[in-house]
Amino acid sequence: MVIENVRPELDGGRFAAKGSLGEPVQVEADIFADGHDLVSAVLRWRGPDQEWREEPLKPVVNDRWAGEFEPRQAGLHDFDIEAWVDHFLTWEHELERRLEAGQNVAVELEAGALLVEAASRRAPTRDAQQLRRQAAALRGRGATRAARSLRLRQLMGRHADRSLSTCLERPLTVKVDPERARSSAWYELFPRSASPDTKRPGTLRDVETRLPYVRSLGFDVLYLPPIHPIGHSFRKGRNNTVSATPSDVGSPWAIGSEAGGHKSIAPELGTLKDFRQLVRSARRQGIELAMDYALQCSPDHPYVKEHPEWFRHRPDGSIRYAENPPKKYQDIYPFDFESEDWRELWDELLSILLFWCEQGVRTYRVDNPHTKPFAFWEWAIARTQAEYPGTIFLAEAFTRPKVMYELAKLGFTQSYTYFAWRQQAWELKQYAQELFTPPVCDFLRPNFWPNTPDILTEQIQKGGPRMSALRFVLAATMSASYGIFGPSFERVEVTPLVPGKEEYLDSEKYQVRHWDGAAEPPLAGLIRKVNAIRAAQPALRHDRWYRQLATDNEMLFAFLKTAPGGAAPVCVVANLDAENTQRGWIEPPVAIDGDYDVVDLLNDAVYRWRGAPNWNFVELSPSVTPAHVLRVGAPVP
Amino acid sequence: MVIENVRPELDGGRFAAKGSLGEPVQVEADIFADGHDLVSAVLRWRGPDQEWREEPLKPVVNDRWAGEFEPRQAGLHDFDIEAWVDHFLTWEHELERRLEAGQNVAVELEAGALLVEAASRRAPTRDAQQLRRQAAALRGRGATRAARSLRLRQLMGRHADRSLSTCLERPLTVKVDPERARSSAWYELFPRSASPDTKRPGTLRDVETRLPYVRSLGFDVLYLPPIHPIGHSFRKGRNNTVSATPSDVGSPWAIGSEAGGHKSIAPELGTLKDFRQLVRSARRQGIELAMDYALQCSPDHPYVKEHPEWFRHRPDGSIRYAENPPKKYQDIYPFDFESEDWRELWDELLSILLFWCEQGVRTYRVDNPHTKPFAFWEWAIARTQAEYPGTIFLAEAFTRPKVMYELAKLGFTQSYTYFAWRQQAWELKQYAQELFTPPVCDFLRPNFWPNTPDILTEQIQKGGPRMSALRFVLAATMSASYGIFGPSFERVEVTPLVPGKEEYLDSEKYQVRHWDGAAEPPLAGLIRKVNAIRAAQPALRHDRWYRQLATDNEMLFAFLKTAPGGAAPVCVVANLDAENTQRGWIEPPVAIDGDYDVVDLLNDAVYRWRGAPNWNFVELSPSVTPAHVLRVGAPVP
Repeated sequence: MVIENVRPELDGGRFAAKGSLGEPVQVEADIFADGHDLVSAVLRWRGPDQEWREEPLKPVVNDRWAGEFEPRQAGLHDFDIEAWVDHFLTWEHELERRLEAGQNVAVELEAGALLVEAASRRAPTRDAQQLRRQAAALRGRGATRAARSLRLRQLMGRHADRSLSTCLERPLTVKVDPERARSSAWYELFPRSASPDTKRPGTLRDVETRLPYVRSLGFDVLYLPPIHPIGHSFRKGRNNTVSATPSDVGSPWAIGSEAGGHKSIAPELGTLKDFRQLVRSARRQGIELAMDYALQCSPDHPYVKEHPEWFRHRPDGSIRYAENPPKKYQDIYPFDFESEDWRELWDELLSILLFWCEQGVRTYRVDNPHTKPFAFWEWAIARTQAEYPGTIFLAEAFTRPKVMYELAKLGFTQSYTYFAWRQQAWELKQYAQELFTPPVCDFLRPNFWPNTPDILTEQIQKGGPRMSALRFVLAATMSASYGIFGPSFERVEVTPLVPGKEEYLDSEKYQVRHWDGAAEPPLAGLIRKVNAIRAAQPALRHDRWYRQLATDNEMLFAFLKTAPGGAAPVCVVANLDAENTQRGWIEPPVAIDGDYDVVDLLNDAVYRWRGAPNWNFVELSPSVTPAHVLRVGAPVP
Repeated sequence: MVIENVRPELDGGRFAAKGSLGEPVQVEADIFADGHDLVSAVLRWRGPDQEWREEPLKPVVNDRWAGEFEPRQAGLHDFDIEAWVDHFLTWEHELERRLEAGQNVAVELEAGALLVEAASRRAPTRDAQQLRRQAAALRGRGATRAARSLRLRQLMGRHADRSLSTCLERPLTVKVDPERARSSAWYELFPRSASPDTKRPGTLRDVETRLPYVRSLGFDVLYLPPIHPIGHSFRKGRNNTVSATPSDVGSPWAIGSEAGGHKSIAPELGTLKDFRQLVRSARRQGIELAMDYALQCSPDHPYVKEHPEWFRHRPDGSIRYAENPPKKYQDIYPFDFESEDWRELWDELLSILLFWCEQGVRTYRVDNPHTKPFAFWEWAIARTQAEYPGTIFLAEAFTRPKVMYELAKLGFTQSYTYFAWRQQAWELKQYAQELFTPPVCDFLRPNFWPNTPDILTEQIQKGGPRMSALRFVLAATMSASYGIFGPSFERVEVTPLVPGKEEYLDSEKYQVRHWDGAAEPPLAGLIRKVNAIRAAQPALRHDRWYRQLATDNEMLFAFLKTAPGGAAPVCVVANLDAENTQRGWIEPPVAIDGDYDVVDLLNDAVYRWRGAPNWNFVELSPSVTPAHVLRVGAPVP
């Protein structure tokens, strides 16, 4: 027996594949043997601390077999495949062909009876009795009918001869996460910009008062950039100027001052008590608070004095600041993960995660993980999740694809992506194909962001509210997880520092902003609606069943999302042209034969679509809507 | 360091990849590390009983690296990849960027000097002295020039710090075969049809007199269907009739009679001495004799009496004959490879191979290997090749693709393919794409046959000489190995037993045929010419560098073959329409900028083709030629 090309299998079992509650784990493999005999196979699996169970595996095409199991709890699940040459099935199949040809089958019936008797010796008493009766029937009158009985097949399936069966060399592993690992809507907010009072910066308490707004928009994760004390040395001024004035507040990513480091709250934002209160209050409102985990220090960080050995030194004795020559980041010291004292350093860095978990945090956005060792992440994530199961890590690694993939494989729950720069239809299609199909969909969960504090694309700068709306709908419907950096996003404040570059003018990274909360932001209505649709439509909360739909107009980008368990499919048709009305034909999203109704969940419009193989006509005007988000209904009777 | 997606790697190293003399082994891998430091990597390899050597590995694109080594002898070769973070290259790269930005680099030059000094401590005396001088230069005047010196880079490359390097978990293996494993032209012939005298059947001596003809056609393998004694029981008559008359000669695949079994020569064909003489004579003329290895017995085979335990029995005590219900093959008993006495059986079956190797045979065509255990083949092939290195096994497995692939992986040298049934352009393209690219080209060597004694396609039945000519040119130019079943092929004797079925009328499988040797067969001239082209053009004797060429006419099928080492590329354009003239445009086969000449090696016609990006016009009339076989020349000055 050969069992190969198993899916999901990552690097020969080196890493666990990703699964989540509410999603069956679909297993496939090539299974075959030499010779012409028929083969049987089962999928074996077990949840954490459970017994092995079995599910059927069925041949699909060309020796490819498929089956699935439905995890019932989070945690590591093992699966295995057991396959064997099935002499009974072979006998049954050949007997049928002999009977059709009108051959004398007396000898074959006796051979069958012997197989059934052998099975009876493997079976417990009750089944054994039945099997012996079946064997007798194969020797009596009506033997042909007995040979064709469903009961016989069931009994023989239950007591198949597996003495020469083959399994995988070792079981494979799927890490099953809670549903929120698979699907989430993130909102990013600088606490110091959250003040309702333009005379003072915002605090954690101000953030707490913003929670109802965030919730009203429909987000379920609120991500705060670092909230730790900010260093003074080489502090950056407004708009990333090199020399700060005394009134400049500095970048939150320059972590650490005499007021404390990674386990402290910046005094201007509040206290640890405020923070715990914010976490609790958010959770009560259905929002998880996400912390920034940024492993770097300002020169004023307590670690620098206490543990100079944790940093790299230059030949002149000074500590090496961060550099990407010729650029220098003198306000930041990276850690030396290969320092002689690396064990103590790694333990301390892990203790930061555990400290904030203790304060109630279960979600981390990790800053630039690709500049730290792979081995550290594998260890730190596993250790954190061992103590705080289900803790989520979002990798902010905008780097080469293979490095991003490696981080996802070794434990990151979700990953930022190149979505912001995938703008043409062919780019979006190619990227969706890459992310939403195996092997990538087995280990990487994309999180689509149309903007971040570092990414204001030229497309959004120039595209006005219509383009922001389009990019929002694409992010929130293509990917089960997505996020926006607000309030600039929903207010469509898109002025760059330098036209064509991706930095915001007056970026919140370097200064306090005040956002007037009185008027409804222009995109708030759309965001509210789309998040409500996501909440109501399971199809939008899964990525594995994404299917591109062909259109006859490159400006119309169409895809279908479905979910297991009979949820309605959702077909999205977006107009990639934020300026002009576009019209065209869309390939049938479903194989329904007759007509059926599709409902645009954005405006409740109903269209009657013609069944396959007909294509359907769509016209989208950007002054009205960036897209149709269509729930596909049942056939019209 | 991460090293993954290595090629060639079969099932995690479970099987050796295939290589051959005259072809570099091209190795690729994804190689990357966390962080921004530059990486270096080398390809390590060793031939049988040799020391490890190193070749460069270079980045290609997107963290993919490539390199190659050139095996100098046949046998198992190991290779490994060693990669490390290269602090010197990183220093050099960053220094350059600092210098470009006009920064003060005093501290960096000192850091570089320390790196060079460290290298001097790893180097042998002479290089160590030079490195110390280089370190001093980095501290002196002209330090910048010293930092940029090629000599420094060479020395540092030679003595890089590999103390933290990463290798593959275990080296991978490539089995390097002699060139004839990669490229061969087979001619199949029934000895009993080789008689020049219509009054008697042919013998091995008659075959010997046919050798000059086979050689004149340009073939280098002569394959004989089984030459063992043929059984009498249930012997098949002419045209596969169930009851034979006393004059019927039987199928050579019903092996064994009172005259002997798999180690005997059928008395009507001659003696063992005749056979040894034939093998020697063929080899002198540049032809290898291929034996048929067909593991089955007629009921009259000596094994049946001597070892009834080697066969499966039915409940009534009779031996199970071969069946594919409802079809019965009562003239053949398959072996029971899982018999209690399997060790003795397997040893005996291996001894057949060793016996014929002793008589000088080094090439086997294996009949239906997919109906015998995979494990048997892996063992028997390895054992035979251990005693008789370079012995070739051609797998005649027309079965499901994955089973064919498994046989190739576990040791078969070459494999029959579906070529005969790939007839439309899209089918040929898809199949070429599958066979000639990784992973398949790393383990399977296709052997294309337009016909066999069992395969007379409807296309050839109906297509006349022009279709046979077309299929011949496709087989002989697309694939480095191919074969024909003659003399029916070159004589275009294509009458089927039943129109539309693939059996020949008056098949040589069941009766003696006499082929009049007087007249030149209609296809002989073309065959002679194409085999001469194959001999002169290395490009046609490699499969790894096959490239499909686009045309604007689906009836024109075009591809390019190239070979390593500067051989001329050969561009083939075939007219798949054997009835009508077809014309159209062919995409540029090479990236030559200006014009260049292509020479049709079939008729010496010269065409001046325009350089890329121009397409070139082709017109092919089937009454003149089935194809252009164009040697691509150098640019016209």
